[in-house]
Amino acid sequence: MKIIDFRVRPPLKGFLDMVMFTKPERRDRFTRQLGFEPAPSATERSMPRLLDEMKAAGVVHGIVTARVSDYFGSVSNADVAAIVKAYPGVFSGMAAVDPTNRRAAIAEIDAALAAGFVGVTIEPGAYPVPIYADDRRLYPIYAHLEDRNVPVVIMTGGNAGPDISYSDPVQLDRVAADFPRLRIVVSHGNWPWVSHIIHIAFRRANVYVSPDMYLHEMPGMDDYLKAANGFLADRFLFATAYPLAPLQAYAEWFARLPLKPENLEKCVYRNAADLLGIAPQ
Amino acid sequence: MKIIDFRVRPPLKGFLDMVMFTKPERRDRFTRQLGFEPAPSATERSMPRLLDEMKAAGVVHGIVTARVSDYFGSVSNADVAAIVKAYPGVFSGMAAVDPTNRRAAIAEIDAALAAGFVGVTIEPGAYPVPIYADDRRLYPIYAHLEDRNVPVVIMTGGNAGPDISYSDPVQLDRVAADFPRLRIVVSHGNWPWVSHIIHIAFRRANVYVSPDMYLHEMPGMDDYLKAANGFLADRFLFATAYPLAPLQAYAEWFARLPLKPENLEKCVYRNAADLLGIAPQ
Amino acid sequence: MKIIDFRVRPPLKGFLDMVMFTKPERRDRFTRQLGFEPAPSATERSMPRLLDEMKAAGVVHGIVTARVSDYFGSVSNADVAAIVKAYPGVFSGMAAVDPTNRRAAIAEIDAALAAGFVGVTIEPGAYPVPIYADDRRLYPIYAHLEDRNVPVVIMTGGNAGPDISYSDPVQLDRVAADFPRLRIVVSHGNWPWVSHIIHIAFRRANVYVSPDMYLHEMPGMDDYLKAANGFLADRFLFATAYPLAPLQAYAEWFARLPLKPENLEKCVYRNAADLLGIAPQ
Repeated sequence: MKIIDFRVRPPLKGFLDMVMFTKPERRDRFTRQLGFEPAPSATERSMPRLLDEMKAAGVVHGIVTARVSDYFGSVSNADVAAIVKAYPGVFSGMAAVDPTNRRAAIAEIDAALAAGFVGVTIEPGAYPVPIYADDRRLYPIYAHLEDRNVPVVIMTGGNAGPDISYSDPVQLDRVAADFPRLRIVVSHGNWPWVSHIIHIAFRRANVYVSPDMYLHEMPGMDDYLKAANGFLADRFLFATAYPLAPLQAYAEWFARLPLKPENLEKCVYRNAADLLGIAPQ
Repeated sequence: MKIIDFRVRPPLKGFLDMVMFTKPERRDRFTRQLGFEPAPSATERSMPRLLDEMKAAGVVHGIVTARVSDYFGSVSNADVAAIVKAYPGVFSGMAAVDPTNRRAAIAEIDAALAAGFVGVTIEPGAYPVPIYADDRRLYPIYAHLEDRNVPVVIMTGGNAGPDISYSDPVQLDRVAADFPRLRIVVSHGNWPWVSHIIHIAFRRANVYVSPDMYLHEMPGMDDYLKAANGFLADRFLFATAYPLAPLQAYAEWFARLPLKPENLEKCVYRNAADLLGIAPQ
Repeated sequence: MKIIDFRVRPPLKGFLDMVMFTKPERRDRFTRQLGFEPAPSATERSMPRLLDEMKAAGVVHGIVTARVSDYFGSVSNADVAAIVKAYPGVFSGMAAVDPTNRRAAIAEIDAALAAGFVGVTIEPGAYPVPIYADDRRLYPIYAHLEDRNVPVVIMTGGNAGPDISYSDPVQLDRVAADFPRLRIVVSHGNWPWVSHIIHIAFRRANVYVSPDMYLHEMPGMDDYLKAANGFLADRFLFATAYPLAPLQAYAEWFARLPLKPENLEKCVYRNAADLLGIAPQ
């Protein structure tokens, strides 16, 4: 099974300053709450081990997401670009921007796209001053991305912000309605609002769903899977959110889920490849 | 099995101008997302075929709902009355009103009831200017219906309005609390807020639940059914929302659900007959 | 199996003036909607029978909660203290306060703690003037409890207030975030917002979940149980909300749930004992 992992944070550069690497006990508690043991590469902050784990898991490609955040820690687009460059063919980059200055944000997006980034990540509740996904300051950015046919990853699930209102589905729904040709990946699957994001994806053909680690034995798992075996088969994505979940154990568990073989292949590889216009081997 | 279908839009008169008949590719995409193939009668806009399909499905009676909407298209009460008259015993009508003028709305309701309509349909988010189910302008109408013991169908599920906030359960809950003797049918079952509407129906004895096509292999299906086999057995209704779901395939699927035989009969026929005071054969 | 029932209202003193004893037909309808037959002790308002039922159910200890409410009826801390005193070792008390006067509330809390109460119960939507769980007037009380390491029971599930907004999870989430060392028991498990409270408990280590009677064959049951068998094993509590559910039938049903033996013991006894610092036999 050939996998594209839609959310990976390798133990390199700015990622090592993020809370998920600076506070290993916090991360490991999270990982164990999910029902996994921490990945050795995470514990050891070892890039060679991560590459081994990717191979063992069948992950042929990882999407590395930059971040603008106080709470979680920031990772610059320059760092992500350097990681992508250092491991040719192994990673693609998602660019992050500060939404409080639309002109600077759009200039940063254009520069990132010119440098080979495959999309843009928006984490409304994780910004230094948290905002909602339908905040007016994000609308010029969404418009820019829609006009250029650039996919956007919006993180509105799990610990999406200071409280659960930051994953309230209405904000995401409005963005999807207002930018109907903007391809939106809902990172962390809007969890725990599972039936709600499935409704939204049912209604809006531009919405992709990536439940990530919150798929693992969490409430809503069966609903995500039923959708992935039905109308959502072409818009469901696989991600571990490594280092929060370990690649190999997650991939092995995922392969045993009751997905039809053709849908499994779409979910772990084809949908991501088509969405991003890449064909990693 | 003898069935009353609580929501049917036959291919006649004003219905042919609604988006569900004018944009067949949109409707068929919706139908296929549900996991069904479009009904031949829908594709052919054929009333004789629909009557055949009703017979094959065991649908002895259909509730035909008028509509006031820009988004979906409107169907007048006069059209619905003409359809009911043209097919004696086959259909009953639900009257729609414009909520922005309470006196005209109430006059229209009284005229419709005098003409044999069996209830009134309110679609808050589908009106030309969308409103919420607990909008103050609807309260004189609800009061009028409660005082006359007329059932109301409130559509607050699925694509209930411009965004998912139009199916937020709190508005419906307030209406049910403020008019405790008004019998309310929640059309489209407040989907995807399934556990929420089940809570509301658990608490409010005046709430009936009609999940319609959103029951079909969608998130929450098992919860709807558990309720239908328990405390909700007398307040669960069957509807296809034809032409969005095909009658025969839906009815055959429904008959195989894990409902106790006595509850199945209530859900597909008895509850609707008792609610509306009809006894179609 | 040795059980601590985290929510019991014996047929004594002020409880006999509460709606659950003054309107038995209302209570019994509720009980039957849950799928149970009323307890004989409830019907007969018989304390000796309740003690027998506790014994038959394996309930070695009950938490008796005072209440300040118009809608449900009030029970004073004095009444609860008298009940605890009259049945030594059988019950512990949770004190209620009027939140509208913070100084009086805090004095009442201090007096109750000095008198042996094991915690404080807050029922935001049940107060004579309903408020939300994150109402500013509750914040001095929460702060006082957090500073003294006193557990609080917040009732934000089921019929938590005039409408479903009183169980909206965002308010509870904010309290849990703002008082991270305050141990919060979510009474009635924030039902029907099941996946939401599980998310909140996943994120906030200070949140305990007590679904009570709303666990019984209600939507979300499987999700509560999956959490109780996973990350929530140390923070899941058992309660019948007697007289709304009967002790013996509920306990027997609970014992057959697919909980691992070690988790079952935690859920029905150990977690409550540890939380309250008691060891009833």
